[in-house]
Amino acid sequence: MTENRQIRLASRPLGTPSAENWSFAKGPVPVPGEGEMLLRTLYISVDPAMRGWISEQRSYIEPVAINEVMRAGGIAEVVESHNPKFQKGDFVSALTGVQDYSLSDGKGVVKVDPKIAPLPTFLGGLGMPGMTAYFGLLDLGQPKEGETVLVSGAAGAVGGLVGQIAKIKGLRAVGIAGGPDKCQYLLDLGYDAAVDYKAGNLYPDLKRACPNGVDIFFDNVGGDILDAALARINRGARILICGAISQYNNLEAVKGPKNYLALLSMRARMEGFVVFDYAPRYASAAVDLANWAAKGQLVFKEDIVEGLETFPETFNKLFKGENFGKLVIKV
Amino acid sequence: MTENRQIRLASRPLGTPSAENWSFAKGPVPVPGEGEMLLRTLYISVDPAMRGWISEQRSYIEPVAINEVMRAGGIAEVVESHNPKFQKGDFVSALTGVQDYSLSDGKGVVKVDPKIAPLPTFLGGLGMPGMTAYFGLLDLGQPKEGETVLVSGAAGAVGGLVGQIAKIKGLRAVGIAGGPDKCQYLLDLGYDAAVDYKAGNLYPDLKRACPNGVDIFFDNVGGDILDAALARINRGARILICGAISQYNNLEAVKGPKNYLALLSMRARMEGFVVFDYAPRYASAAVDLANWAAKGQLVFKEDIVEGLETFPETFNKLFKGENFGKLVIKV
Repeated sequence: MTENRQIRLASRPLGTPSAENWSFAKGPVPVPGEGEMLLRTLYISVDPAMRGWISEQRSYIEPVAINEVMRAGGIAEVVESHNPKFQKGDFVSALTGVQDYSLSDGKGVVKVDPKIAPLPTFLGGLGMPGMTAYFGLLDLGQPKEGETVLVSGAAGAVGGLVGQIAKIKGLRAVGIAGGPDKCQYLLDLGYDAAVDYKAGNLYPDLKRACPNGVDIFFDNVGGDILDAALARINRGARILICGAISQYNNLEAVKGPKNYLALLSMRARMEGFVVFDYAPRYASAAVDLANWAAKGQLVFKEDIVEGLETFPETFNKLFKGENFGKLVIKV
Repeated sequence: MTENRQIRLASRPLGTPSAENWSFAKGPVPVPGEGEMLLRTLYISVDPAMRGWISEQRSYIEPVAINEVMRAGGIAEVVESHNPKFQKGDFVSALTGVQDYSLSDGKGVVKVDPKIAPLPTFLGGLGMPGMTAYFGLLDLGQPKEGETVLVSGAAGAVGGLVGQIAKIKGLRAVGIAGGPDKCQYLLDLGYDAAVDYKAGNLYPDLKRACPNGVDIFFDNVGGDILDAALARINRGARILICGAISQYNNLEAVKGPKNYLALLSMRARMEGFVVFDYAPRYASAAVDLANWAAKGQLVFKEDIVEGLETFPETFNKLFKGENFGKLVIKV
């Protein structure tokens, strides 16, 4: 406990982030003031949404400033506390940033219990990805038993959970992912069918995998995959816009869905959401998710990389589609 | 009553329809069989949706076949009836097609009363455009007093009504149309502000006209205008996809909305609808619309062109943006 390693945003990436967009800094371990506590980061969450946080465009949260420590959710241990709600030795989920140590006044910090689940799971299935899958599918998606749910980015942190929750709810779950290994992974998770978008036959493959059309499309990817899904939607379909990882590093304008007029002929709805809006209901969702996991109906899967200093390369695994499940850095 | 003039679909247009896509035919006046009646067409409705009916793409209704009489809604007089529900001399709204005479078994035919409104109004404010404006804005749009409604194609049959209904409901109404004459027309109808998309400053002009952002966007146009509107939406906005006249004659793929990710950051919804789904509620909507008109709160405006044979040129007025209000052919 002598120094605080940090990854800072050196410049805004044009297209895919690269090494020069980040700077590595070392500083002293900060000292907590009145009401504050010192957190030691154990695990760092690596998420597609981070790409939005480092761009300047209008979004739901302020961009990370140049030379600021990169914003990140994390799991940390309380090493010193002047806050009556937290004690030394507590484990917490907090916005730690990509650094060894951070200060917190306790706002937005949630205690996590390693007896309930391994700590990284609180960044995955019991964290934001779990909440995103749960509220997106069940609240916005309004699924009815027997309907078909199609999921893009299905091998990612959110997508892997959406398919499993869909199966618990009696739906047909079809996942889209890149490559045969990921497609096999989807079937292992319980997806009814998997479509490899890299195989080059997206439209016919989707048609085969969704013989009754698509009632809910849970989209993490955007671009051509969104268009292909729109071509298969049923009347009254719900298209949930959770993300658009195919478009985040575009140097040109985002590719809009040219098949959007299917919304008209199919009386369908395309809706965006931000999981933070559901914060008041996180706790009850976590109980459901944990119960399903306890019964063996839901598997939490993390992809853990060691070393805070790996952040720049680890982050880019998301855009290369290299992660299976929730991507986490073990500090 | 010696011959039946007809406009038939000769070939499917590539891009904007032209004369060679239509054929002009003359035939005998048909003879009604048991349960049928003979209708003489008085007014023919000319609608953007007709462009979809003559293309082959997947939509909510079967395409018109090659060499078939062009499908059209119309107002007709019953000249002979073997159907107990209709009598000679009744005026009706029916799918007459673009022709002088048609047969009907009475299905989907509605009597109209010229004492309530002039006959062409039953193709406009008391017909499909009225129903489209009414259910789109009030049912899908779920407006709340004080919100801002933005309307594209605002000088058209539907758009002119949306703005007026919005004012009746206590909303701020902003219309987009092409050219100063149409913008003046919008202000005359009661729109709070009008934006001329041909003036070349769409983004700043929209910002000025919608200082509090856009809560409901009623889109008849698509393309660049949809993108500009998406850039101004508020949190929880509703984007109603009623049509996309800018895209109907595209030779290339439809231009998808590149700003669709505003749906995510703004937790907004884009939804398509087809007015036919509201048929069971048409009558109650017509009562509301007629009452508003009787009180002088709502003005029905038709743009009437004489001559069945003008159909090919009259139809194209829609794509040139030449009509003010509901476009109707007087036979």
